[in-house]
Amino acid sequence: MPLIAHPQSMAFEAPLALTSGASIAGYTLAYETYGQLNADRSNAVLVCHALNASHHVAGVYEGQSKSEGWWDNMIGPGKPVDTDRFFVIGVNNLGSCFGSTGPMHANPATGRPYGADFPVVTVEDWVNAQARLLDALGIESLAAVMGGSLGGMQALSWTLQYPQRVRHAVVVASAPNLNAENIAFNEVARRAIVTDPDFHGGHFYGHGVVPKRGLRIARMIGHITYLSDDVMNEKFGRQLREGISPKYSTQDVEFQIESYLRYQGDKFSEYFDANTYLLITRALDYFDPAGRHGGSLAQALAQAQAKFLLVSFSTDWRFSPARSREIVKALLDNRRDVSYAEIDAPHGHDAFLLEDPRYHAVVRSFFERIGSGVAA
Amino acid sequence: MPLIAHPQSMAFEAPLALTSGASIAGYTLAYETYGQLNADRSNAVLVCHALNASHHVAGVYEGQSKSEGWWDNMIGPGKPVDTDRFFVIGVNNLGSCFGSTGPMHANPATGRPYGADFPVVTVEDWVNAQARLLDALGIESLAAVMGGSLGGMQALSWTLQYPQRVRHAVVVASAPNLNAENIAFNEVARRAIVTDPDFHGGHFYGHGVVPKRGLRIARMIGHITYLSDDVMNEKFGRQLREGISPKYSTQDVEFQIESYLRYQGDKFSEYFDANTYLLITRALDYFDPAGRHGGSLAQALAQAQAKFLLVSFSTDWRFSPARSREIVKALLDNRRDVSYAEIDAPHGHDAFLLEDPRYHAVVRSFFERIGSGVAA
Repeated sequence: MPLIAHPQSMAFEAPLALTSGASIAGYTLAYETYGQLNADRSNAVLVCHALNASHHVAGVYEGQSKSEGWWDNMIGPGKPVDTDRFFVIGVNNLGSCFGSTGPMHANPATGRPYGADFPVVTVEDWVNAQARLLDALGIESLAAVMGGSLGGMQALSWTLQYPQRVRHAVVVASAPNLNAENIAFNEVARRAIVTDPDFHGGHFYGHGVVPKRGLRIARMIGHITYLSDDVMNEKFGRQLREGISPKYSTQDVEFQIESYLRYQGDKFSEYFDANTYLLITRALDYFDPAGRHGGSLAQALAQAQAKFLLVSFSTDWRFSPARSREIVKALLDNRRDVSYAEIDAPHGHDAFLLEDPRYHAVVRSFFERIGSGVAA
Repeated sequence: MPLIAHPQSMAFEAPLALTSGASIAGYTLAYETYGQLNADRSNAVLVCHALNASHHVAGVYEGQSKSEGWWDNMIGPGKPVDTDRFFVIGVNNLGSCFGSTGPMHANPATGRPYGADFPVVTVEDWVNAQARLLDALGIESLAAVMGGSLGGMQALSWTLQYPQRVRHAVVVASAPNLNAENIAFNEVARRAIVTDPDFHGGHFYGHGVVPKRGLRIARMIGHITYLSDDVMNEKFGRQLREGISPKYSTQDVEFQIESYLRYQGDKFSEYFDANTYLLITRALDYFDPAGRHGGSLAQALAQAQAKFLLVSFSTDWRFSPARSREIVKALLDNRRDVSYAEIDAPHGHDAFLLEDPRYHAVVRSFFERIGSGVAA
């Protein structure tokens, strides 16, 4: 019997002060929980999401058989993060377009959608908002916080912002900050959205249009960076879409890879919010704990008290293993308890979402260690 | 005293049959020559250009001090390709926007600009057009053909289409075909152009607009792939453009790398033709000599008779050293005379245009060897 997920939401009335100096008035967070919080409230695991995901981490919605959560292969009864043992919380971040307050919602100051006026939110702001949700759920301390990619940055930031509230942190396919190339790809995607005439300066909601051209380009760029060269060659290579002879056209789809990318772009443009895309890529750009310590990651991570598991994937060129090793080294410089696994996987950055036996075994074993210190 | 370049052009009245099955009616090629053709016409070197370059390979235009040709550091009096010894020819390819017949010129069938109706041209078509130019210049055989990137593909194709007319080939930072990731980047750039409302299906000339949004995005993506991760981090890193504190904005320029990319995109959109961009990226996509030999590059290159120099650059991730080594191996499988240099350079794909002493020494030495077999 599959795990059934129940979306919930919680409204917060007190304004939240943001890194930028602005603050956001009352807001709502969408979240889901799986499993049972134990009596001493010591088995809570918070899962943070990356760019394109949400609070719907695991399970399916009642009567919707193909509605698996984005990390359903990792989290559930008997899975590496075992919901028979842990109380798992998925939360949708502020500014997202999947249920929490975001740019498409009404700005209380104007009564109209925030649009481009939604305040810029950072990884640190998200962590603060998540901490308030935990307060409301009566959870003082997390058995673990975990996430992949941008979600891993949030997990890392939790250990720095609330070192006393995090006993373990699992940081997968992540990085201590974006490098220039990462920022560059984000910027091209943003320019594609912002220069789409249907963007209307971010206030497109009132015009009855969506900057789909820009969203499509943004997603196509994203997909290239999520996949490894190897897996792209293996899945698509130079295969033509139709027949064996090219049509010799500049605009038609000729190669399979073009068809795949166009499909991914089209699909994304149907459901993702353009302002959210800008906000989330900016949160990525700005994340840089070392930046507040003169560039020293070791100094920045000195605040962390948690035990860590870091995982990277050999063919991930978006956040390469070298970036994870920077975090591992900075933690070891501080004599922190850190496990690190570099998984030899062909799938590039996307590997963190896929079911790889070695990867899942490493996470399972880490959570068994956590579970052994937690009351049933 | 600098080398003075003189742009020339030659009109061809006979139609040229194209790979696609179409043909192009009368057309003009822009070209330049440097140095003197010797008495037995044995010292000619043809230089083929890549995406964004032209027939203006070396020297400056009279009275225009900053008008150096795109490979001026390589070609000129006393330079690695010494114009005191060789007669060097630069030619602008069909479909380009720098002087040869292209999409912005009148289609004789309609009297209006070709626009998107300009026939798709391939690397092989360009080589055929270049061969006609050599015929007209009275050059039966080339001492060498050379090019970098897409230009290197033309040089390679010369040795297959006209094996008897090429004594040496210099193929720099090139590849035997595009892989899926290369095609993917081209496709995103093309979609950005084609979906720009100012593209008007490729017939924007009559609307008094230019699809600059799309061209900017295309160029930004290109620039990311031309540079190495290392050089991007070294040149830009995470440096903010102004001051030391971010402005927390989704649309303003925050990081130096954003400013650089926007500048490159803006500049490109002022002078490059959108239809030419589509044509040239498609020529890249379609190039695949092995494809006509069941995927065997060794079989494809069996036709080559030239002596080869291949050069690649360690940090080039667009056309990595591994791609050059595929060509080297296929030539060695055919017992061809091939020299190969893998230059340890930090600049990525762009390295082929830069002045690196080891790289230039390798090319100089190869041309000295060529020169020793050529009458003065």
